[in-house]
Amino acid sequence: MKTRAAVAFEAKKPLEIVELDLEGPKEGEVLVEIMATGICHTDAYTLDGLDSEGLFPSILGHEGAGIVREVGPGVTSVKPDDHVIPLYTPECRECKTCLSQKSNLCTSIRSTQGQGLMPDGTSRFSYKGQTIYHYMGCSTFSNFTVMPEIAVAKIRDDAPFDTSCYIGCGVTTGVGAVTNTAKVTPGSNVIVFGLGGIGLNVIQGAKMVGANMIIGVDINDSKEEWGRKFGMTHFVNPKKIDGDIVQHLIALTGGGGDFTFDCTGNTDVMRQALEAAHRGWGESIVIGVAEAGKEISTRPFQLVTGRVWKGSAFGGARGRTDVPKIVDWYMDGKIEIDPMITHKLSLEDINKGFDLMHAGESIRSVVVY
Amino acid sequence: MKTRAAVAFEAKKPLEIVELDLEGPKEGEVLVEIMATGICHTDAYTLDGLDSEGLFPSILGHEGAGIVREVGPGVTSVKPDDHVIPLYTPECRECKTCLSQKSNLCTSIRSTQGQGLMPDGTSRFSYKGQTIYHYMGCSTFSNFTVMPEIAVAKIRDDAPFDTSCYIGCGVTTGVGAVTNTAKVTPGSNVIVFGLGGIGLNVIQGAKMVGANMIIGVDINDSKEEWGRKFGMTHFVNPKKIDGDIVQHLIALTGGGGDFTFDCTGNTDVMRQALEAAHRGWGESIVIGVAEAGKEISTRPFQLVTGRVWKGSAFGGARGRTDVPKIVDWYMDGKIEIDPMITHKLSLEDINKGFDLMHAGESIRSVVVY
Repeated sequence: MKTRAAVAFEAKKPLEIVELDLEGPKEGEVLVEIMATGICHTDAYTLDGLDSEGLFPSILGHEGAGIVREVGPGVTSVKPDDHVIPLYTPECRECKTCLSQKSNLCTSIRSTQGQGLMPDGTSRFSYKGQTIYHYMGCSTFSNFTVMPEIAVAKIRDDAPFDTSCYIGCGVTTGVGAVTNTAKVTPGSNVIVFGLGGIGLNVIQGAKMVGANMIIGVDINDSKEEWGRKFGMTHFVNPKKIDGDIVQHLIALTGGGGDFTFDCTGNTDVMRQALEAAHRGWGESIVIGVAEAGKEISTRPFQLVTGRVWKGSAFGGARGRTDVPKIVDWYMDGKIEIDPMITHKLSLEDINKGFDLMHAGESIRSVVVY
Repeated sequence: MKTRAAVAFEAKKPLEIVELDLEGPKEGEVLVEIMATGICHTDAYTLDGLDSEGLFPSILGHEGAGIVREVGPGVTSVKPDDHVIPLYTPECRECKTCLSQKSNLCTSIRSTQGQGLMPDGTSRFSYKGQTIYHYMGCSTFSNFTVMPEIAVAKIRDDAPFDTSCYIGCGVTTGVGAVTNTAKVTPGSNVIVFGLGGIGLNVIQGAKMVGANMIIGVDINDSKEEWGRKFGMTHFVNPKKIDGDIVQHLIALTGGGGDFTFDCTGNTDVMRQALEAAHRGWGESIVIGVAEAGKEISTRPFQLVTGRVWKGSAFGGARGRTDVPKIVDWYMDGKIEIDPMITHKLSLEDINKGFDLMHAGESIRSVVVY
């Protein structure tokens, strides 16, 4: 079949909107009509050539929502017309990691996914006979895409595509880091470093679970209004305080955050987040993705005196199990997404979405097919 | 009253055995006759002048066992003739940390303890009119010492002093890191870096809770025999393998340790311990105390892919609550201590104990009064 898609023919070039050839789903695969897709920093990271493992030509996009249109042989968990969110972190429920029940980092299709291929080692996309790679197992910048059955989460039919697509990455990453990774407890003091989309979702996750202080830290004062909209109780601009940000936060919380989150990707900030965690029990969660080669450091004394350093990927969410729950939270009004979708674009305008992101003018731009 | 004690008059000098003046217990304090005391690396660290906060003249020693001989006004939890283990980490059960039930790092007397003083801001020890400082709130290198009530753990009367004193630091630090901090689960694969006294106690803790593989890592082959004695199932000498120790351990365990422990104090080894933890859920516990100024580092990717970095102090044990249980484990044969006590000395020979430790010839030397 044919599908319209935005193709990344090479790094550092705008995406090109073309009509591609798409092979139908093979065994264990499903064809999904993508109805909407967010544009995420990770797409830009790859397009900008910063990911040394980035493959071209490829179809980027990993934050979508759509409808199953066809299923391949052996598919049992979804059927045509089911509404789904594609999962860049699948959930096979059979690998050592899934069975451990201690991690969401399913390994079943990791190697082929990293190679831009379906589990059988081939791509479903081609353009004028040339192979086009899949991306993060999703390729939501194509109106139609093929995915393994284990990499789609069936969601309720009444969730709007143009907002719930954000649950495919940003919302789950932030909210899930609170609920799954940190397991923030009611009454906790929470410190969130970096008030971009992820940080805002951490804030609203913390609010949802009944946190006490929810302190947002950002060097950009304009983020304060955004933070407060989603439940932030205190704002700190590290550039506008006297002295050290860590000591400032420890004083503000009377000892440090019970849970702190880095949503910046800056390794110096990751250290501050750890050290601003409460002596004895404070946990610090790294969510941000650091520049290649950058390392985090601290004195081991910080750990020996009871701080815990963790990380979170896809909010610790098991995609098929937890993503539908987050859609429910959204539909029940426990979390908000609509105000975060600052721009809705057509596929033709997708490059504008990247420009808005680079200019810091969007929380989330969404392409609606 | 008078007491015999080994005094550290200054750093880098041998201890001197003298007769001191000791004031009796004030309100909330107890007088303890120390019956035996271990000689720990931390004592040597201070005596060698490596602890920038070390105070002299002082009476070192923090790993003792003894008998309450007198109690001050208001003391209710122990009485004369009770057998006790002094606690350098007290348990007041009233401070924010104790009440959190999430940490053993009681803060109630931290400031005065750090100044070598009792909670009222004075010392009970003097020599020819000169103040002699307390050390870690214990000063077990004195035959009699005074401690706050909240800093003694009442233990059973039938536990021998000359072995159970080791529970006052090393045993609890190692076994407790397994049971309290890591909460190692049955069937887990455990990797222990450094097979000194702490490492051996981690090993026997892991054995006690039903670990599967218990891998000891040490650059000294002579440690293998010691490790196996306490439950180690595999030994790896990093100097005798081809390639990288982390990859070697990941291969050996089929993915990494479920729990890894650094018992070396070497920050490079701490990194190896983290990175040898299993992707998705492996937890690495820093027990060793690093050299001043040294830092730990890793790529944040190690955390984002599910590894957890923690530390443990005094084995995460709440002293008055957990230390008596560890004494029970010893008396019930669940853990062993006797073979670890390689040397028993008189107080007059205490400096020989330090020499044996520096020469690597002891697991634990104990002074018996």
